[in-house]
Amino acid sequence: MTAVYASDPEPESRSSRKRRVILEAATAVFLDNGYVGTSMDEIATVASVSKQTVYKHFEDKETLFSELITSIVAEASDPVQAVVQELPESGDIESDLRDLARRQLALVMTPEIMRLRRLVIGEAGRFPELSRTFYELGPQRTIEALSGVFAQLNDRGALRIDDPSLAAEHFNWLIMSTPLNRAMFLPEEAPSAAELQQSADAGVAAFLSAYGY
Amino acid sequence: MTAVYASDPEPESRSSRKRRVILEAATAVFLDNGYVGTSMDEIATVASVSKQTVYKHFEDKETLFSELITSIVAEASDPVQAVVQELPESGDIESDLRDLARRQLALVMTPEIMRLRRLVIGEAGRFPELSRTFYELGPQRTIEALSGVFAQLNDRGALRIDDPSLAAEHFNWLIMSTPLNRAMFLPEEAPSAAELQQSADAGVAAFLSAYGY
Repeated sequence: MTAVYASDPEPESRSSRKRRVILEAATAVFLDNGYVGTSMDEIATVASVSKQTVYKHFEDKETLFSELITSIVAEASDPVQAVVQELPESGDIESDLRDLARRQLALVMTPEIMRLRRLVIGEAGRFPELSRTFYELGPQRTIEALSGVFAQLNDRGALRIDDPSLAAEHFNWLIMSTPLNRAMFLPEEAPSAAELQQSADAGVAAFLSAYGY
Repeated sequence: MTAVYASDPEPESRSSRKRRVILEAATAVFLDNGYVGTSMDEIATVASVSKQTVYKHFEDKETLFSELITSIVAEASDPVQAVVQELPESGDIESDLRDLARRQLALVMTPEIMRLRRLVIGEAGRFPELSRTFYELGPQRTIEALSGVFAQLNDRGALRIDDPSLAAEHFNWLIMSTPLNRAMFLPEEAPSAAELQQSADAGVAAFLSAYGY
């Protein structure tokens, strides 16, 4: 791995490395102690930097938590977007939707994202801007991308969709809802990779029965 | 209303009235202050009873919160169960599923249940028995009842269902997921009655495309 970093044309600067270290420390502290139970002091301690350094990178606790949400959600959402964007060229819609669904569940249903999702939902009443950030970068972004792609697939005659946005909602929740809701309420029973795959495949099958030819 | 209470064959006892008053006060305090931020002291104050009286009815804070979840979730879930149990006799499955879906959303998507759901999810990591109670009495109970009824409707030839439990999950989440996830993350944008009806009707239509004849 050293070789890869060494050959990187833009090696990570001291400042961006510190920023990354602070974000990693903040993730651990927020997920353990909740939003209200977390202080910038403790994040500085866990990151082994001064409190001043934390504030140099992040204006306040809300900004830090918001950037943390952005970074964690984007890390799962970016690869999903990439797979969605390949769909219009699909030669085998069933196989490609199943591939998308499986990859989406594998990327999103991680212990870290599930803990963050529970934390953000729990604080949505007091900090609605934070939960909005999660919602817009996560489910809403995926559903909007799917919607655009479903419209194209309808035009091409590959799917039969009157309302692409509704169909995108149905696709997303048909594959995700069962494991996601269990993860929200039963955090100790993480679904196995096989269960996730089953949920993805069954959701795609129901979706194609409703929206396929 | 006095006449109704007066003619009630079993008027509410002093003890059960106190219990109800404590539960109502506890609901207000928990939903405002969160689980950790709530004390039995404050519940006693808001209920205008002694702390001793609170403990006479509820062993500890966890027991009280668990009974509160049970009471609030059952109040929404019991009428849904009743509607589900009428489905096997349905002469017009589309109309009756739509009626079920609309009533389910109207009963579950209340501000109080949404606040409780966010609170319980937020505390699921620390208090998994509380979130399990919510899950089992809410979604799981509805999905199990639906599953039994879908099996009968398949046998009767009214629906085409290989896996009743999977179909029940799909039905439940097709109608609920969109408004429910918005309510989790965007608490300030409560869906209108018309939006809930639309989500119910669209979910039923997709479900029947996938599982109907």
